[in-house]
Amino acid sequence: MNKLLAEFIGTFWLVLGGCGSAVLAAGVADVGIGWLGVSLAFGLTVLTMAYAVGHISGGHFNPAVSLGLMIGGRFDAKDLIPYWLAQVAGAVAASVVLYIIVSGGAGFTGVGGFASNGYGAASPQGYGMTAALVTEVVMTAAFLIIILGATSAGAPAVFGPIAIGLGLTLIHLISIPVTNTSVNPARSTGVALFADGPALSQLWLFWVAPLVGAALGAIIWKVMSPDD
Amino acid sequence: MNKLLAEFIGTFWLVLGGCGSAVLAAGVADVGIGWLGVSLAFGLTVLTMAYAVGHISGGHFNPAVSLGLMIGGRFDAKDLIPYWLAQVAGAVAASVVLYIIVSGGAGFTGVGGFASNGYGAASPQGYGMTAALVTEVVMTAAFLIIILGATSAGAPAVFGPIAIGLGLTLIHLISIPVTNTSVNPARSTGVALFADGPALSQLWLFWVAPLVGAALGAIIWKVMSPDD
Amino acid sequence: MNKLLAEFIGTFWLVLGGCGSAVLAAGVADVGIGWLGVSLAFGLTVLTMAYAVGHISGGHFNPAVSLGLMIGGRFDAKDLIPYWLAQVAGAVAASVVLYIIVSGGAGFTGVGGFASNGYGAASPQGYGMTAALVTEVVMTAAFLIIILGATSAGAPAVFGPIAIGLGLTLIHLISIPVTNTSVNPARSTGVALFADGPALSQLWLFWVAPLVGAALGAIIWKVMSPDD
Amino acid sequence: MNKLLAEFIGTFWLVLGGCGSAVLAAGVADVGIGWLGVSLAFGLTVLTMAYAVGHISGGHFNPAVSLGLMIGGRFDAKDLIPYWLAQVAGAVAASVVLYIIVSGGAGFTGVGGFASNGYGAASPQGYGMTAALVTEVVMTAAFLIIILGATSAGAPAVFGPIAIGLGLTLIHLISIPVTNTSVNPARSTGVALFADGPALSQLWLFWVAPLVGAALGAIIWKVMSPDD
Repeated sequence: MNKLLAEFIGTFWLVLGGCGSAVLAAGVADVGIGWLGVSLAFGLTVLTMAYAVGHISGGHFNPAVSLGLMIGGRFDAKDLIPYWLAQVAGAVAASVVLYIIVSGGAGFTGVGGFASNGYGAASPQGYGMTAALVTEVVMTAAFLIIILGATSAGAPAVFGPIAIGLGLTLIHLISIPVTNTSVNPARSTGVALFADGPALSQLWLFWVAPLVGAALGAIIWKVMSPDD
Repeated sequence: MNKLLAEFIGTFWLVLGGCGSAVLAAGVADVGIGWLGVSLAFGLTVLTMAYAVGHISGGHFNPAVSLGLMIGGRFDAKDLIPYWLAQVAGAVAASVVLYIIVSGGAGFTGVGGFASNGYGAASPQGYGMTAALVTEVVMTAAFLIIILGATSAGAPAVFGPIAIGLGLTLIHLISIPVTNTSVNPARSTGVALFADGPALSQLWLFWVAPLVGAALGAIIWKVMSPDD
Repeated sequence: MNKLLAEFIGTFWLVLGGCGSAVLAAGVADVGIGWLGVSLAFGLTVLTMAYAVGHISGGHFNPAVSLGLMIGGRFDAKDLIPYWLAQVAGAVAASVVLYIIVSGGAGFTGVGGFASNGYGAASPQGYGMTAALVTEVVMTAAFLIIILGATSAGAPAVFGPIAIGLGLTLIHLISIPVTNTSVNPARSTGVALFADGPALSQLWLFWVAPLVGAALGAIIWKVMSPDD
Repeated sequence: MNKLLAEFIGTFWLVLGGCGSAVLAAGVADVGIGWLGVSLAFGLTVLTMAYAVGHISGGHFNPAVSLGLMIGGRFDAKDLIPYWLAQVAGAVAASVVLYIIVSGGAGFTGVGGFASNGYGAASPQGYGMTAALVTEVVMTAAFLIIILGATSAGAPAVFGPIAIGLGLTLIHLISIPVTNTSVNPARSTGVALFADGPALSQLWLFWVAPLVGAALGAIIWKVMSPDD
């Protein structure tokens, strides 16, 4: 139960911090934090909570990461579904809190996109479904290679939260324009429940592509590092 | 006394660096650092001073942190009031120094908001009192979970200042638009003494919410990690 | 073979992350990440993959780095050409993936400069060939001093990926306006194959100058630290 | 001699990276790195070279730091003048290289302020001499407290370059608007030799204030940590 609470808290923080900074602070004129600030925020949610509760649950905060770690032989298959449920619950709880804050803003009329993920007309810069699929698969595969590598026996594992958190920052620096960056089905699900627009009808892609990418990354890692 | 001097210096630096960067550098046209720069500045005040004097005083620099560490069983109750006094004194001293610098600017006519915290009309983006309360409670609770977790026996504690400092950066990336971000009653008090506007009459919220949030965070941590 | 796969993956990530963030996210109005975000992205590609696969291949991801490490006595000459081939192959593969993503954007009509390197009219701010040569030589020399120093016996080598990755960020913060920053012939080659403009005809400079700079940096290091 | 070469190289890099990013990349429209990027660049010069050559020379790169370390009992007085000379020589050499690069830009007509430090009309935001003096003294004092604390016996000294480098970033985030930030007489001297405007006639302040501030910081540290 402690593990599931840690995953709930960590994913809550990932969605509140990452999507919260996007919704509240990114687009403000002159002093807004922009996509660079949002990228940093997403990464720092993982960096901070991985140091804080990583020793309790492993610090996944992401169903695709849990799957990739399972395929990579680092995570027990029987814990997969409980972890997924805790992660999605944390993401939904964060979306509720974010909704409460956002709705207290001056002249509130609706949450709009609410930092949801999308493709086509719902992509921040209008990228189509193929570009979105390729982007999410490749980004999640690279994320898993970073995670598996930085926490492997050959690496100084105490630096793992820095490499992994800043890896998530990097992924956002690249791919926010394409899909608003998921690589995390729980993050996509939480905000999709509240977002205006096609977030729910497009949600399938942000489960399929990250899970496929995570599996691909884990397989590449095992090929590259067979003794790990 | 060394401990209290360290808390005075650390909180002085937090307010001079965080509020100073906000007042002096955030809103300058074209090259200003924006809220992203201010968020980084607040976090780096804690990162730097936690490495410098953390081994002397514990590196709280914040009355809410001292309370949360006390509730979490890491800090002796008899030191709480002396720490609070040293922290508030450091924050006030930094505000005096910042006032001296700001008043030496070309065409100085007043300090304006002076990086004070507020809600309603005093919120940077007009968020109301409920949004401010929720934000400050949740942000401070998360901050304490990060602090207690990253310095717990299971974590590599030498990375604590990185996790905690960058955690404060993250908190600012999310919540500057709502309350200008406090999570620290000493920081709010120091600048409120000099600010134009309702900062002093709204100061109660920036004591109550961070202290409640810190207590909440400490309790969540103890539930999640009962053996710590 | 594991080493060459690691170099392929690492250079793939460097080009996809660094050039990808530049092409996709740098110039977007209001929320774009700008050159600061691109600089951070390039650095984080190295930081993340050096922690992930550095223990497999050494984490060069750059033909100039391989040459400099060879001259510095840290890398076996017989591995130089295989490493170069793996690095260029990774850079080309990343450019293919980036082309697929970019061509899926709304209203796509061509890749333009595609984050290629250049001088004269192809320099982001119109710097001439001499300025480009000086910049690339000096930047690569400094990069090699950082790499050789931060991984030397006297330094805490587990921090190497942080120093080296953020060193690459710093190099971009300085020199993007001059050449769009190479210091890495593989990175220049990959995108030059797809870019509009004179990238291929100017590619010689982005092999010559980084290789000369890397050799220079290695020699300075050996003079400064003869016992290393 | 190895120590002096390391100080030369490190200060060369500090001025080329910090002032170079300011001159070349800060003010470019839309994608320029702004003061936030310049702040990061200055800090990363120290972070990278402190890891690379800190074990050779101590990694001062700054006459005020050398003085403060001497007063703090960490540095031998007989090495002070040689270190100062090496530092100023490195700063001047970097200014020459930067001049060569800048003068190769399209439509070059002069270096302008060349990232020099100043007050009054030469302050980026028009701050007067008193504000400049207070700012430089307080910033350098805090810098020395961070340096002495983060490298003291009680702190994890391998993190020193992170705390000190990011401390210099923080100092720039606060004080670029006031004086363009010196806290380093060598940095001020190097670019003043080439800058248009009153940089040379105002140079006295950027020797006096950092040296006074460094002494003050060292004394505060010794009071706070008498057994160090």
